Amino acid sequence: MTALAAGATIGIIGGGQLGRMLAAAAARLGYRTLVLEPQPDCPAAQLANRQIVAAYDDPEALAELVRECAVVTYEFENVPVAAATSLASDVPVCPPPAALEVSQDRVIEKRFLNAQGLSTAEFLPVDSDADFAAALRSLRGGVLKTRRMGYDGKGQRVFRDAGGADGVYAAMGGVPLILESLVPFEREISIIAARGRDDSLAAYDPALNVHRDGILHSSTVPSGVAPATAETARTSAFAILEALDYVGVVGVEFFVLADGSLLVNEIAPRVHNSGHWTEAACTVSQFEQHIRAIAGLPLGDTARHSDCVMENLIGDDVLRAPALLAEPGLMLHLYGKSEARPGRKMGHFTRLSPRTA
Amino acid sequence: MTALAAGATIGIIGGGQLGRMLAAAAARLGYRTLVLEPQPDCPAAQLANRQIVAAYDDPEALAELVRECAVVTYEFENVPVAAATSLASDVPVCPPPAALEVSQDRVIEKRFLNAQGLSTAEFLPVDSDADFAAALRSLRGGVLKTRRMGYDGKGQRVFRDAGGADGVYAAMGGVPLILESLVPFEREISIIAARGRDDSLAAYDPALNVHRDGILHSSTVPSGVAPATAETARTSAFAILEALDYVGVVGVEFFVLADGSLLVNEIAPRVHNSGHWTEAACTVSQFEQHIRAIAGLPLGDTARHSDCVMENLIGDDVLRAPALLAEPGLMLHLYGKSEARPGRKMGHFTRLSPRTA
Repeated sequence: MTALAAGATIGIIGGGQLGRMLAAAAARLGYRTLVLEPQPDCPAAQLANRQIVAAYDDPEALAELVRECAVVTYEFENVPVAAATSLASDVPVCPPPAALEVSQDRVIEKRFLNAQGLSTAEFLPVDSDADFAAALRSLRGGVLKTRRMGYDGKGQRVFRDAGGADGVYAAMGGVPLILESLVPFEREISIIAARGRDDSLAAYDPALNVHRDGILHSSTVPSGVAPATAETARTSAFAILEALDYVGVVGVEFFVLADGSLLVNEIAPRVHNSGHWTEAACTVSQFEQHIRAIAGLPLGDTARHSDCVMENLIGDDVLRAPALLAEPGLMLHLYGKSEARPGRKMGHFTRLSPRTA
Repeated sequence: MTALAAGATIGIIGGGQLGRMLAAAAARLGYRTLVLEPQPDCPAAQLANRQIVAAYDDPEALAELVRECAVVTYEFENVPVAAATSLASDVPVCPPPAALEVSQDRVIEKRFLNAQGLSTAEFLPVDSDADFAAALRSLRGGVLKTRRMGYDGKGQRVFRDAGGADGVYAAMGGVPLILESLVPFEREISIIAARGRDDSLAAYDPALNVHRDGILHSSTVPSGVAPATAETARTSAFAILEALDYVGVVGVEFFVLADGSLLVNEIAPRVHNSGHWTEAACTVSQFEQHIRAIAGLPLGDTARHSDCVMENLIGDDVLRAPALLAEPGLMLHLYGKSEARPGRKMGHFTRLSPRTA
């Protein structure tokens, strides 16, 4: 496929802040955007050329995406796989629906990663009370998570030892679960990588991530990990991209162990919160990189001109915006959400400083 | 006036690329935008929340701006002054309509500048053939320009000596003209400065500008002028901002003479093409700076993290886009215009390099 011509329309499934930043990046490259999102006046639609207000799997809406778009992408990983697969028979869908299948189910995801030779926490599927008791004994505690539809720490419970299994499976709603072993990690990092239509690969420097209440709080670059660890993060991300015949940007989260080795925590088949710093500290942001990849353009330069710390504004944190705007060397980004509910990502900011490493 | 709350709507009169980049910057600060522009699906409206498709002085459209907007700005200087003045009685208009009056007429503009103690080329108003012959003798040649509505070198003729005056006034359409003396300038620079609602002032580093066929071709930063010259550019821009009780970003163009002294060429009461580099080389772009100023937010940091050269893509130059995207350290920006007519600004790009000065 040749590169999309300027003026072509890119479909975006999902209307949140990631779609908003993708729409802005697409516009800067001369493309139009059409957002599919049931919530009217969503953050993405405020910047996109047009929005289809409909469910993600609405057949008429999908037919409209096929008619209007030269390529379709998505900004969250819980897009219905059937919808993405059906779309993909009529219009290029990037990243490929296979990436959704892998990332939507934590068991499938870990099996996929292990099959690529990438280490993860130990894990066991949990489909009953008896499964859970056995798994908890086998892994001597662990983090119990829903296999599907989890994000920002929702649907997770930690067990420090093998006790307390009774009734938990039912209390979690009787849905398929996974128990992951407790990992004695020293820190968490992530890497934002991309693969182009021409099989080219690119990665940004890894970021050191700090979570609070299961939600990303900050990402710092440089991450301070050893060069060998950073290189492993890079090659791991590239292995994932190649195994999935992926086109677009991926976010890969890792646990860093005391010896510098890495366990993959999870894959996000999309632009990622821990890559927002690229907009402030690089010439080509992760959003532009994704649009370049799916449009068949050359991947962009991932070099960083500054060190930086990105911090999320969650809920009422957004009230800090006016004070933050008075700080030199700070880039603020708000998402156009009218209501600051607790736990809701309202914006982020990035503090820049001269490059040290 | 306190700062605009997130979610407030900013009105933008004019729908070109400057409005487009203002709309993107406003969104990043959490504001909504409403564009008034007769051309449907204009570059600005593609990123704005909404467009009113109507003439710039349409009474119903202006009433709608008053109802919807917390502040109204403009992206070109030929907004009808009567419309801006009438708007300003009902809603804050920034920059003030007085800035439009000054910049719309080259004679008024130069008289205003001289009154502030700022030097310009010598000039004489030309309202008849006789005026022109006398002016041409007095200034020993010069550049004959329309007093109003000129841009990108349109409506200009150069006379190297005092001859050839006959019939020219009528040939230029019988409209009010100005003859400006030929200035033996060594180079052209411009400065992008801003004034906030709190009277604070800020300026970016001046850019060295090269024009081709009367249209800006490139802007280079650092400009290479002596520090004293840069400081004069800065204080001149600040004097203009204060004299006009201005709020927002202004672009001021200067001729640099052999001794380093400056003549003001013209004032653009808006974000300016020669400031597009700020998006690539600064944390706060001129577009964000303008939105900050008119929204009553603190002015942003004008520090530059890189050296840079911005180049316009005029007409078919836009065909270079795919090749440019393959260059490391380059930021491309296209304007969403479907037709690449000769002389039409289709986009620009900025090449970045490590900061040297």
